Amino acid sequence: MATDTQIRIGVMGCADIARKVSRAINLAPNATIAAVASRSLEKAKSFASSNGYPQSTKIHGSYESILEDPEVDALYVPLPTSLHVEWAIRAAEKGKHILLEKPVAMNVAEFDKIVAACEANGVQIMDGTMWVHNPRTAKLQEFLSDSERFGQLKTVQSCFSFAGDEDFLKNDIRVKPGLDGLGALGDAGWYTIRASLLANNFDLPITVTAFPGAVLNESGVILSCGASLTWEDGRTATIYCSFLANLTMEITAIGTKGTLRVHDFIIPFQETEASFTTTTKAWFNELVTAWVNPPTEQTVETELPQEACMVREFARLVGEIKNNGAKPDGFWPGISRKTQLVVDAVKESVDNNYQQISLSGR
Amino acid sequence: MATDTQIRIGVMGCADIARKVSRAINLAPNATIAAVASRSLEKAKSFASSNGYPQSTKIHGSYESILEDPEVDALYVPLPTSLHVEWAIRAAEKGKHILLEKPVAMNVAEFDKIVAACEANGVQIMDGTMWVHNPRTAKLQEFLSDSERFGQLKTVQSCFSFAGDEDFLKNDIRVKPGLDGLGALGDAGWYTIRASLLANNFDLPITVTAFPGAVLNESGVILSCGASLTWEDGRTATIYCSFLANLTMEITAIGTKGTLRVHDFIIPFQETEASFTTTTKAWFNELVTAWVNPPTEQTVETELPQEACMVREFARLVGEIKNNGAKPDGFWPGISRKTQLVVDAVKESVDNNYQQISLSGR
Repeated sequence: MATDTQIRIGVMGCADIARKVSRAINLAPNATIAAVASRSLEKAKSFASSNGYPQSTKIHGSYESILEDPEVDALYVPLPTSLHVEWAIRAAEKGKHILLEKPVAMNVAEFDKIVAACEANGVQIMDGTMWVHNPRTAKLQEFLSDSERFGQLKTVQSCFSFAGDEDFLKNDIRVKPGLDGLGALGDAGWYTIRASLLANNFDLPITVTAFPGAVLNESGVILSCGASLTWEDGRTATIYCSFLANLTMEITAIGTKGTLRVHDFIIPFQETEASFTTTTKAWFNELVTAWVNPPTEQTVETELPQEACMVREFARLVGEIKNNGAKPDGFWPGISRKTQLVVDAVKESVDNNYQQISLSGR
Repeated sequence: MATDTQIRIGVMGCADIARKVSRAINLAPNATIAAVASRSLEKAKSFASSNGYPQSTKIHGSYESILEDPEVDALYVPLPTSLHVEWAIRAAEKGKHILLEKPVAMNVAEFDKIVAACEANGVQIMDGTMWVHNPRTAKLQEFLSDSERFGQLKTVQSCFSFAGDEDFLKNDIRVKPGLDGLGALGDAGWYTIRASLLANNFDLPITVTAFPGAVLNESGVILSCGASLTWEDGRTATIYCSFLANLTMEITAIGTKGTLRVHDFIIPFQETEASFTTTTKAWFNELVTAWVNPPTEQTVETELPQEACMVREFARLVGEIKNNGAKPDGFWPGISRKTQLVVDAVKESVDNNYQQISLSGR
C-alpha cells in the first residue's frame, strides 16, 4: 500500500534488470511502484503482471505517456545507454526525478546535458549502481579511511568478469554499438571504476592507460579490457572487465598499513549478508615460514537487499525535495560523472593504441 | 647424520634467507649441510653455530675456499644479485651444482652466461623460488589445466607487496643499485612474474608494458611498479610489486569456465597447510541477487615445508647426475630464464616511459 510519504516511482522500460529493481522499489519503505511503461501497452501489462505489480499500477504504452503521468514523482530508467540522453532530459523537463541505469550515458558530454536538465528543473538524479548502497560498503569505506588499520592507499585492483554465452555475445544490447555501445567497459567496467574511485575517496585519477590486449567484437564494441590509473600522489589502480571469462568480482586495496579484499563486491554471494577480509600490519614470523597478523573476515548483515537500499536512498533524496523543499543532492551525480569520465578515458586509450590519457582539467 | 645418498650442500654466504634454507636442507631427506662460507671465518662460524649446524660442518672464511671443498656437491648461493654472475660461473667451473637465489641475475645476458657455464660443466642449476615447490602449487596447476573446471585462461593478476620499514628502505641490499639493484621488481616482482608464467603454462608473453606510476628511489632502484603482459592468443596478465605497501600476495586467475584465487601464494599463512579457492561456472540466481556455484576452498597439507621440498627436488636432480649419470635438467633454468626475461622487460619499460616492450625473438 502506498502511503503519503512514499515516493511514487514509474518504471520506464521493461529490461531484465527492471524486474530486480521493481522488487527493490516494493521492498523500500519509502517508495512505491506507481506506473510502468513500455513501447507497447501489452508488453507493459505483461511485465506488470509477471512481476506482481499491484492492480493500481498505471500501465503506459509509451515512454511519452509515463512522462505525463501526474502521479509519478520519479522514474527508474533502464533503457539502453544510447537512449539515456534523450529520455533522461525529457523526464527532467517534466519534473521527474531520475534513477538512471549505468552507464549513465555514452560519454560525459551526454551526461553533462542530462545533469544540466536536472539542475534546470530541480530534479534529483542518481545512477543505478547498487553495491555502493550495501551496508557492507560503508564498512569498507570505514576501513579504507582508518589511518591506523589501513594507512594511506597505495593501490587498488578490481575486476569484474562474467562469461556471456553465445546468445549474449551475439544478441545482448551490451554488445550492440547502437544500444549499450560501451560494452563490457560500460557494464562490468563501470563497477570496477567506481570501486577505484571509492577507494580513492572519489578523487579523479590524473592518467588512465588501457592495457594492450583489449578484445573488441566485429562492431568495435569492447568485450574485454583493462587499464591502469594513477593519482597525483603516487596512488595507482588497475581495472579489468570482461564478458569472456568466468564470473569473478574482486577488490584488493593495499595501503601502507593494511589490505582489504572483497570477492563479491557487486553481487554478494548471499543476499542477506556480505563479507570482506582485512589485514593490518601483516608480516612474517621470524624464519619467514608463516604469517603474523593474517587476514580476518568480517561479515555485515544486509537487512534490506542492496538494491532496495539504493531505492530507499533515492526516494529519501526525492522526498527531501518534494516534501521539505531541499535542493537536489550533488554527491551522486558527481560520482556518476567521475565514473563516466574514466570510462570515456579507458575507451579513448583503447581507441588510440593504448595511449596514456590525461584527465587534467576534465 | 649424512648418508651416502645425501647431496652435500655448501651454503655460500650468510644472508638472512640462508637461515631458512639451512633449516630446509636439514629437513630435506636427501640433502645435508656440508659446509658454510662467508667473507670472514668468524662470521661463518657464528652463522653455523647460531643455526645449529652439526660439528662436522666445514667452515670456510672465503667464497674461493668453499669452491675448492671436495666434500661439497652443490652450493646454495644467496649472495646479492650483482655477484651471481661471477660466483655462479666460478662454482660451475669447479663442478658444483647451484641452487641460486632469485633474481638469478641482473639481466638475462648475465644469466645466459651462468647457464652456459653450467652446461659446459654438466652441473644442475635451479633458482630459489620456493612456492612453486609447495604441494599446493601442483594442485593449482591441476585446476588451471582442467578444461572442464577452468577452461582456457583469459587473465591472471598477481601482486606481492610488503611494507619495508625505514631501515629497510635505507639500508637493505634490495634498495642498493650495486647489490640487488632490481629492487622490488627483482624481489617481489619475481614471484608475480613466475605466477603469470605458471598460469600460462610457461609460455612467454609477447608484450610487456609497465604501468605509469612506478616509484624509484634516489638511486633509481624500483620500489614499486606494475605491468601488463599479453600473449599471442589474447591471454593477458597484470603484475604488481612493492616495498611500500602492506604485506599482500594474491593470484587471481580467470578462465573461460573457472576462477582460481590464492591469497598467500609465496608464503602460506601457515606452514603445515595451504589453501586456495576455486569457482567453476559461477553465475547468478534468477533475480541476480546472489551467486550460484560460489567459491569453494581446498586445503593441501604440507608435509615438508615448501623450501625443504625445493631442496629435495634440487638434491634429487643432483643425485641423478652424480649417482646415475643423468644430464642436468633443463626445466628449472628454462623457467628462471623466462622469469628474468620478463623482469628485464618490465625494467626496460619503466626506464623508457612505460613503452610497450616486445619479447618476440628473446
